[in-house]
Amino acid sequence: MKQRFSTTIAYGCAALLATFTYSVSAKQVSISSPDQSITVVVSDEAGFPTYKVSHQNKPVFSESKMGLAFKSLPEFGSEFVITSETRSEFSEVWEQPWGERQFVENTYNEVSITFADKDESKWQFSARFRVYNDGIGFRYEIPEIKGESKVEVVDEDTEFGFASDATAYWIPGRGWNRYEYIYNTTALEDVDRAHTPFTTKLPTGVHVSIHEAALVDYAAFTLDQRRPGVFKTDLTPWYDGSKVKTQLPFKSSWRTIQIASEATGLLNSNLILNLNEPNKLGDVSWVNPGKYVGIWWAMHVNEKTWGSGEKHGATNDETRRYIDFAAKYGFDGVLVEGWNIGWDGSWFHNGDVFSFTESYPDFDLPALAKYAKQKGVKLVGHHETSGSVTNYRNQMADAYDLYEKMGIEQIKTGYVADGGRIKRIDEQGHARHEWHDGQFMVNEYLHSITEAAKRKISINTHEPIKDTGLRRTYPNWIAREGARGQEFNAWGSPPNPPEHTAILPYTRMLSGPMDFTPGIFNLAPYGLQAENRVKTTLAKQLALYVVLYSPIQMAADLPRHYENNKPALQFIVDVPTDWSDSIALAGEIGDYVVFARKSRESEDWYVGALTDENARTVEIDLSFLDADAAYEMQVYQDGKNADWLDRPYEIEIYSKMVRAKDKVTLKMATSGGTAIRFAKK
Amino acid sequence: MKQRFSTTIAYGCAALLATFTYSVSAKQVSISSPDQSITVVVSDEAGFPTYKVSHQNKPVFSESKMGLAFKSLPEFGSEFVITSETRSEFSEVWEQPWGERQFVENTYNEVSITFADKDESKWQFSARFRVYNDGIGFRYEIPEIKGESKVEVVDEDTEFGFASDATAYWIPGRGWNRYEYIYNTTALEDVDRAHTPFTTKLPTGVHVSIHEAALVDYAAFTLDQRRPGVFKTDLTPWYDGSKVKTQLPFKSSWRTIQIASEATGLLNSNLILNLNEPNKLGDVSWVNPGKYVGIWWAMHVNEKTWGSGEKHGATNDETRRYIDFAAKYGFDGVLVEGWNIGWDGSWFHNGDVFSFTESYPDFDLPALAKYAKQKGVKLVGHHETSGSVTNYRNQMADAYDLYEKMGIEQIKTGYVADGGRIKRIDEQGHARHEWHDGQFMVNEYLHSITEAAKRKISINTHEPIKDTGLRRTYPNWIAREGARGQEFNAWGSPPNPPEHTAILPYTRMLSGPMDFTPGIFNLAPYGLQAENRVKTTLAKQLALYVVLYSPIQMAADLPRHYENNKPALQFIVDVPTDWSDSIALAGEIGDYVVFARKSRESEDWYVGALTDENARTVEIDLSFLDADAAYEMQVYQDGKNADWLDRPYEIEIYSKMVRAKDKVTLKMATSGGTAIRFAKK
Repeated sequence: MKQRFSTTIAYGCAALLATFTYSVSAKQVSISSPDQSITVVVSDEAGFPTYKVSHQNKPVFSESKMGLAFKSLPEFGSEFVITSETRSEFSEVWEQPWGERQFVENTYNEVSITFADKDESKWQFSARFRVYNDGIGFRYEIPEIKGESKVEVVDEDTEFGFASDATAYWIPGRGWNRYEYIYNTTALEDVDRAHTPFTTKLPTGVHVSIHEAALVDYAAFTLDQRRPGVFKTDLTPWYDGSKVKTQLPFKSSWRTIQIASEATGLLNSNLILNLNEPNKLGDVSWVNPGKYVGIWWAMHVNEKTWGSGEKHGATNDETRRYIDFAAKYGFDGVLVEGWNIGWDGSWFHNGDVFSFTESYPDFDLPALAKYAKQKGVKLVGHHETSGSVTNYRNQMADAYDLYEKMGIEQIKTGYVADGGRIKRIDEQGHARHEWHDGQFMVNEYLHSITEAAKRKISINTHEPIKDTGLRRTYPNWIAREGARGQEFNAWGSPPNPPEHTAILPYTRMLSGPMDFTPGIFNLAPYGLQAENRVKTTLAKQLALYVVLYSPIQMAADLPRHYENNKPALQFIVDVPTDWSDSIALAGEIGDYVVFARKSRESEDWYVGALTDENARTVEIDLSFLDADAAYEMQVYQDGKNADWLDRPYEIEIYSKMVRAKDKVTLKMATSGGTAIRFAKK
Repeated sequence: MKQRFSTTIAYGCAALLATFTYSVSAKQVSISSPDQSITVVVSDEAGFPTYKVSHQNKPVFSESKMGLAFKSLPEFGSEFVITSETRSEFSEVWEQPWGERQFVENTYNEVSITFADKDESKWQFSARFRVYNDGIGFRYEIPEIKGESKVEVVDEDTEFGFASDATAYWIPGRGWNRYEYIYNTTALEDVDRAHTPFTTKLPTGVHVSIHEAALVDYAAFTLDQRRPGVFKTDLTPWYDGSKVKTQLPFKSSWRTIQIASEATGLLNSNLILNLNEPNKLGDVSWVNPGKYVGIWWAMHVNEKTWGSGEKHGATNDETRRYIDFAAKYGFDGVLVEGWNIGWDGSWFHNGDVFSFTESYPDFDLPALAKYAKQKGVKLVGHHETSGSVTNYRNQMADAYDLYEKMGIEQIKTGYVADGGRIKRIDEQGHARHEWHDGQFMVNEYLHSITEAAKRKISINTHEPIKDTGLRRTYPNWIAREGARGQEFNAWGSPPNPPEHTAILPYTRMLSGPMDFTPGIFNLAPYGLQAENRVKTTLAKQLALYVVLYSPIQMAADLPRHYENNKPALQFIVDVPTDWSDSIALAGEIGDYVVFARKSRESEDWYVGALTDENARTVEIDLSFLDADAAYEMQVYQDGKNADWLDRPYEIEIYSKMVRAKDKVTLKMATSGGTAIRFAKK
């Protein structure tokens, strides 16, 4: 059901008023969320456009600048005044084809405010604000301008001026390792440059997270603390320093600010999805959530190689072994890395060596695809570009057609890049290096999505552009990496710390699903005291399937480690990856989190809880369960004496009948967790 | 005396070898300092140009990348190979018209290495390395290329890959406040972006400082730790993102690395000056080192205002008072700020309001210039642009002619800028915002220097481009600010900490003179316990005149505070600002420093010593004194019970006869110092 109401107020054409000065006619436009908890006030009183944000009548962002700088057009912002506003209200409930919930409420108040140069109203732009109960989004809209067509944005002057101190949970922006960093927890003042989602906790307990939504044909931004407490959007540049090369009219992506009275409020928000355009792909019944295993971890723990030779992982025998394992336990897919020519030698420095159609001699793609089909399993494709995107694009049509023919409906893509930069070949044949989150790559990533959609193929992007909710518009963009995942526990220096997955839900996971690849059972391949190991308990690995949402979840370990612990494996076998509802029940950033999710395939509920390096006991009530039903609660929890360092494998598995009125105590060890299935009877 | 020897080795033209591959013909070029303590090895073995540096046979920088990226030309670096080298040796002693020493030894070994694209030798560039006993300098030289003329450098890929951990002493790069930050002392890994000079101390005790020399018509760089331990040159962009807009042929500035076995080795180096071009201005006898007072601090402590009104500082009466005071004590100049129209209202946000020729009604420039002349004193001019450089440039000729006519031979210029960016008006009349250290401003600052030189005027630049030694080429560029100076003690949040001036000599001061404006006698205008006060003892203020070199030194305080302490004032009256020699005798970064300097005007020597928040006793020997002479040692030291917090004024002044064979113990209080004049008998 959609409702829309709209009113427009024009303040008169600035051009008619020869002596118009902002100080005489300074304007303020105020707009609040439907429940009145959040208010935004936009103004031109300062001599340039500003906005400020309050939550429950307390300032969250002080008057913060807005503006854009162009290569040839004059700067938009300074000396611009408000000339009109158009308000509307909107409310609908829309349905996700897959997701953390099936039905999403999308209710907001909107105002589109036009600014014009006070001397010369030829120069105009609008800022559209949508104010929700869980946050705000705003974007720039630059209209057609007579005589102007192509434009280059060289800077965006949007500021976020925090009205108070805060604690910030952040990863460094513009680093060589894209988003793959351990999170810093610091005072706000100690942040230099940060990626988004950028999450903070104010002294009042209010939680605020800055991000962006619907990033299309624009550069991503990082936040740069240019003045104490004031963060400016730092658009990621092209190789030549320009930021956005586009033409009029154009819109920026949405700058988003989630605001919640408590930490779980951030997790229960749909702000990012709601700001995205509805599904453009039509029927997407060919997009299938599921679980997969793969010839992948074996390479990360040095048992196999991507390249050819004795230890080549992607062989016919090995692949059939994995297909058999997948079939036995009901996994949907088998990822195989290292199947294609190019993995021998210097691929890391130059991805041009990769073929995306030619297999190694010991990997028979058609035969294996057929074998998989017989077993009711699908191969999952793999395209590692090593950042050589022109090589990839040149082969893309053939490569996707090949996979389509092979019945492969999902591809994991990769953009690992030596030195942190993508390589493309320009029209003159010169190599240019771009950032993963610059405008060029924003468009390149989307190109792979739309091309894959033509073949009814879904994409799981590794070394991606940050998620900005485009899965709503392109539901075949099923997952991405974009943070430090499980692989860092195999060889990272250092591995992910115990608190890592207790921070991710409040930061990375606000942007969308992550292919974290949970479920390692052999937590310490090199020994419990080794530098490199998984720094969690076994139960926490199970909890990750519920805590870190993804429509595709990997059972990441080698088959033999699962065979050795079938009781614990049962949770992974049971847990779905598509949900009709999700509720964050409890948690604090960096400390712990508890999620409850209802399966979309059945009436079962699942709970996942995990903690940081501190042991923790959390009581939850089961009021989310259907009131009139009984459930068999199947619990996988840390053993009484478990701890991540010395006794990570101790796990207790038990069942008990429960009802909605009951409470459950989750007792978690250090870096521990609890995974529960509530099987409705 | 100059000596130059030169040899060239060509490795054959790459174009002749159709199957030329770098791996077959990988080259290494090695060059050492005259004393063999520093060795640089340049190579193409990695598939791109690299250099590495060792000191006393221990690695200081591992193989570090070199390269440039252009907007239209292909990238220079990757797949480029060494094709020839040209070696030379050079040795001279040159004379400074003014400076910290009169004669400077300039001895180095040089190699110019040419690199060419291995497939297409049309693309070539050179890197010239000069290796001194106190460090290295290297720069890029791009030759003419057939068919190419205008070029844009969009990135420079020079890396500095530290071979070990280090402690770093640094200020954040690309900040809104340019260079005006308190220094951080951290592990190397905790540096994000940093300005240069960027000084480090290795675990071996070796000190290394990265900077640049001879920055002309190029963008300045900051250092960006792109990978752990690896710092990349981040050229400061134009408003549109480009870095250097130039034409072929061109040279970059020199990238410099000072290396010393101990901290004082950094201070006793002439590397930066030696890499600059000799004096281009010819006769510069009109450039006069000296000391000045000024109507300035009064505004910073809120006794006077820059703007008009009751408390206007720049009035006829006040100026005559300062002139009388200057004449009485032998100061050469009187700075007057707030003399010109524009200080009322919004100058901070928009410097276009400033006139550089029109005085306030209560300031009679010609009359005061005449009065000063009669008293044997000169007015010091003041041009605060507030970052509106087009407004300044439009008035510059008239403004400089006016000052010349008034007998003013020195101008303090300012580029305070709201939001940290300069405003210029482009040819279309559009405002563009540039960085203080981008190529545009590098050229703009130099323009003021060359225009001033035509009128025999010297410039003291505040909010400047960092010093890169251009005072050798343009000796009228007498000083600049470019760090947190004394003014931050009046209102800074916080004021400069006790260790600030014990770090500056090893960082900011390596680049050149600083107009720090020392000599505050009323250390705590708001009370000893107030947040804002000078956090040093009185004796340390005197020591600053010797420790922080500048050819122009201010006696910064209000005249009445000097009149109240004539015994201490005597040191300021006596101390010269031009030296025939300078020797850093002892010190450690952030802890303490001791300088000995010999006056150029007499046979006297001076010693200045200061310490951080720790009281400190340092013994020095006087072997720098002439062997066969007796000196009256006039000591100004902290009183026995002095400490910066509660008893900063306690000072002991005494005289004693000494000779070169003697030793002296410097006993310094917390944030204290010692100032000594050795008057030769």
